[in-house]
Amino acid sequence: VAFLRNCWYAAAWSHEIGANLLARTILEVPMVLFRTEEGRPAALLDRCPHRLLPLSLGTKRGDTIECGYHGLTFDCSGRCVRAPGQERIPPAAKVTAYPVAEHLGMLWVWPGDPALADTAKLFDKLPQWALSQGPEPDWGLNCGPYTRVKANYQLLTENLVDPAHVTYVHKSTLGTAAMADIPVETTQIGDTLLVTRWTLDSKAAPILQRFGKWAGNVDRWQYYWLYPPSIAVVDFGSHTPGMAHTDEARDEGIRIHSCHFLTPETEGSTHYFWLQLRNFAQTDVAVSRDITDQFVVAFNEDKVVLEAIQAAEQQPFVTERVKLALDSGSVRLRRTVARMIAEEQALAAVPAASGRGAGNASTLVN
Amino acid sequence: VAFLRNCWYAAAWSHEIGANLLARTILEVPMVLFRTEEGRPAALLDRCPHRLLPLSLGTKRGDTIECGYHGLTFDCSGRCVRAPGQERIPPAAKVTAYPVAEHLGMLWVWPGDPALADTAKLFDKLPQWALSQGPEPDWGLNCGPYTRVKANYQLLTENLVDPAHVTYVHKSTLGTAAMADIPVETTQIGDTLLVTRWTLDSKAAPILQRFGKWAGNVDRWQYYWLYPPSIAVVDFGSHTPGMAHTDEARDEGIRIHSCHFLTPETEGSTHYFWLQLRNFAQTDVAVSRDITDQFVVAFNEDKVVLEAIQAAEQQPFVTERVKLALDSGSVRLRRTVARMIAEEQALAAVPAASGRGAGNASTLVN
Amino acid sequence: VAFLRNCWYAAAWSHEIGANLLARTILEVPMVLFRTEEGRPAALLDRCPHRLLPLSLGTKRGDTIECGYHGLTFDCSGRCVRAPGQERIPPAAKVTAYPVAEHLGMLWVWPGDPALADTAKLFDKLPQWALSQGPEPDWGLNCGPYTRVKANYQLLTENLVDPAHVTYVHKSTLGTAAMADIPVETTQIGDTLLVTRWTLDSKAAPILQRFGKWAGNVDRWQYYWLYPPSIAVVDFGSHTPGMAHTDEARDEGIRIHSCHFLTPETEGSTHYFWLQLRNFAQTDVAVSRDITDQFVVAFNEDKVVLEAIQAAEQQPFVTERVKLALDSGSVRLRRTVARMIAEEQALAAVPAASGRGAGNASTLVN
Repeated sequence: VAFLRNCWYAAAWSHEIGANLLARTILEVPMVLFRTEEGRPAALLDRCPHRLLPLSLGTKRGDTIECGYHGLTFDCSGRCVRAPGQERIPPAAKVTAYPVAEHLGMLWVWPGDPALADTAKLFDKLPQWALSQGPEPDWGLNCGPYTRVKANYQLLTENLVDPAHVTYVHKSTLGTAAMADIPVETTQIGDTLLVTRWTLDSKAAPILQRFGKWAGNVDRWQYYWLYPPSIAVVDFGSHTPGMAHTDEARDEGIRIHSCHFLTPETEGSTHYFWLQLRNFAQTDVAVSRDITDQFVVAFNEDKVVLEAIQAAEQQPFVTERVKLALDSGSVRLRRTVARMIAEEQALAAVPAASGRGAGNASTLVN
Repeated sequence: VAFLRNCWYAAAWSHEIGANLLARTILEVPMVLFRTEEGRPAALLDRCPHRLLPLSLGTKRGDTIECGYHGLTFDCSGRCVRAPGQERIPPAAKVTAYPVAEHLGMLWVWPGDPALADTAKLFDKLPQWALSQGPEPDWGLNCGPYTRVKANYQLLTENLVDPAHVTYVHKSTLGTAAMADIPVETTQIGDTLLVTRWTLDSKAAPILQRFGKWAGNVDRWQYYWLYPPSIAVVDFGSHTPGMAHTDEARDEGIRIHSCHFLTPETEGSTHYFWLQLRNFAQTDVAVSRDITDQFVVAFNEDKVVLEAIQAAEQQPFVTERVKLALDSGSVRLRRTVARMIAEEQALAAVPAASGRGAGNASTLVN
Repeated sequence: VAFLRNCWYAAAWSHEIGANLLARTILEVPMVLFRTEEGRPAALLDRCPHRLLPLSLGTKRGDTIECGYHGLTFDCSGRCVRAPGQERIPPAAKVTAYPVAEHLGMLWVWPGDPALADTAKLFDKLPQWALSQGPEPDWGLNCGPYTRVKANYQLLTENLVDPAHVTYVHKSTLGTAAMADIPVETTQIGDTLLVTRWTLDSKAAPILQRFGKWAGNVDRWQYYWLYPPSIAVVDFGSHTPGMAHTDEARDEGIRIHSCHFLTPETEGSTHYFWLQLRNFAQTDVAVSRDITDQFVVAFNEDKVVLEAIQAAEQQPFVTERVKLALDSGSVRLRRTVARMIAEEQALAAVPAASGRGAGNASTLVN
């Protein structure tokens, strides 16, 4: 299985990790996530090197984890600091530590070469996040619950460069029949994909009408930004017909940035973190809860479809696939990710000077 | 896995398919079964050729199915009649349609070469069916519930040419100890097998005594007709001792035709449809319900045994098998089906003039 | 998968087999265990040689089992004594019988060469068992419930030559922090392993303090005897500080022999039978129940750890293992068992004069 490894991946909501040890598999690597006494996050391979018991079944002692079988104790760098019954700690007694950072209310891990990990590479395309913090934010924030989807992450990401599915998958929530036949426009800026669709002079989606309170039709926009391999920001909203197609004009309408952070768990399953930033009812907790509830319903509609496709792909019965015009985003996305993975693997084949493994990993907090 | 493909198979009870889309796998092919607005049945491959979403998760629109992901719409012949977001429908956008017919209260599909599908080949050995319809029927009818058995279909069919199992599997329902050592007679008429056993001057089975109200012993017959690959009619009943061994004489006793329609789902699982036709209490709904209830119990006894055998065959622990005299029906049946499959495959190896696939399949109603 | 086959294995508690047929897989061989009318135990391969139905789904008739499909009937030696529908019993109609014995309140089977089975080879290192029987026993007895552990049996046995795990796995029950760093001593007497640890002048374990009622600290001993391949007797207890390190001195303290009988079911699962013999409150049923309850909790702590290790070993993600000083018992045990299996297999490769299979197996009662 090929994944892009030199990349920050969302691993958990920050609030999922308190005094506990959290087991989570990232890119097929079992990891244990935890915090030091001071609250710094850490990620280790979730296997004691002695007998392979997951460290997540052990005990947190200060800034270390004590294995639940024989008490081998490891610090945040993966170094063994205690081996009961002997004074000398065997040099091989260490576990891989993964670079980790806290960002956008989530804990991120870097499953690849730790020498290349850099907090400067954390996702930085969401200036609205900073403006959602504090007592009088410009943007209101709501976060979805951690969700596990039994489908390959690329089935999820291609769904997020695909405005065309909304009419059919989200009949009851986000879609309207009006937009079904309006073609989408796909552009690529570097590795980033942008798929847009404007539905002009049309009925507003129920979820937005409540806040926009438009008397008649609206212009609706969908801007699907996909940052490979697997972060999506869907900018959507509505404003009075005839509005300019600029960023500034969209800010004057009812606007939501719906953000999706997708992390491969295995080839056939994905960790799914999502949040929305909105430019209305910013501090209204009831609105946050309501939007979250509605998107839980909507994204569960995607989950049903994508898990059924994953299951169909795994069954022996196969068939030739048809390509449609609406696949342009998907095709470009898969091509881009495949190229990025190929480049990474070509690079990894070159002998590097950088060290690797336990002790080299630095814990990074943003 | 080898199945006989050029053959009508029972796929569903007619009442299972109303306004809904029914997903059912037949000979390892996932199919979606549905009806047109006029009630004509249709069967398509249950995969959208675009992204493989099962069409059964879509929406029925008139005589078509709209895919639940992007709205591709297919008619009963598998032709795509709409591709949202584009005017031109790609030629590859089609799904296989399977010939389908309605017969004996069931929907039948033909998973093989559609050019060979012919309603004249539908099962026609049950004249009692026609006589069970209408307000004053000669034969009473009761139908069992759709049942899925986790065993290869040939484990089920060989059980239906095997009167010897009744004493041991159906202790509480159909069997009596008296018949245990009475040998069976196996004959073959063309591909059809007939296994018979007469148990003379013996106690009646509880299930029949209630209707026969015999003062003393009875002569009991079991005629197991097996129409390869997988339809069985078990003609059984009782009459006063000394009765003639003719069809006419059996009609004068208490007589039931117990009919079994077996359709491979996968190599290790089978769709099981069964019904009984009886020459007594023809219009008594309570008797129909009572007989159904009793056979649900009896056939579940078979299910337990056959699923245990399927599991034992799949386990790594194997052993040499012993053949018994009572296996004559089973041996002939498996030999006959193997020959029919070999003949079909030899024929398929010859290049045929007939077209195949979507658009060629005709929907047939009997 | 390599197991030591020429060996008695505990297969069931005696009380598990009354008038019933018990299906239990031993060393990957499905067996049916039952008793004759006189109460003699028997073990047959759990497969009818006709169609492979497990005999355990059949019916016990006197000293025989009647198959639940066609009534083939087998006696305790595996000989077919009845084949319904025919007079001649086919010579191949037989099932393997396994030597069986009753001993220490359990039924034992010998899965290997029946010619080598000998009750003299039954486990005889527990003289306290005989002294636990009768109305005024020297030793009190309590037996645990039958337990199935989803882990290879060697994960269980190495846990039983490993005093070091007690502090970490049994925090709440048997362990104390004091003993964590006291090294263990491993000796080998023939194939038998003995791992010992003395924790001097230390707090008593809660489970023993209740009976010892010591005013202050105690000397604690742990003698882990492991009789390969898979029987363990853990002699542990406490007495006043300064006690002699002799068997006689230990008898004067509070002493428990905790006995573990481990039988491979498959490569990844184990049947677990355990009992304790104690030199205090010998006839107190409430104490027996209480000790059982406490060890159920404690051994479930092992179960959680060992099943997690089994799962981790089966996952694709592997890592190099580290060896510690505390592994000396485990290393010697695995080496000893590997040698015993290799010797057995070398011996089996030599053509033997002894017969094998059904009819040769003798049923042995101890």
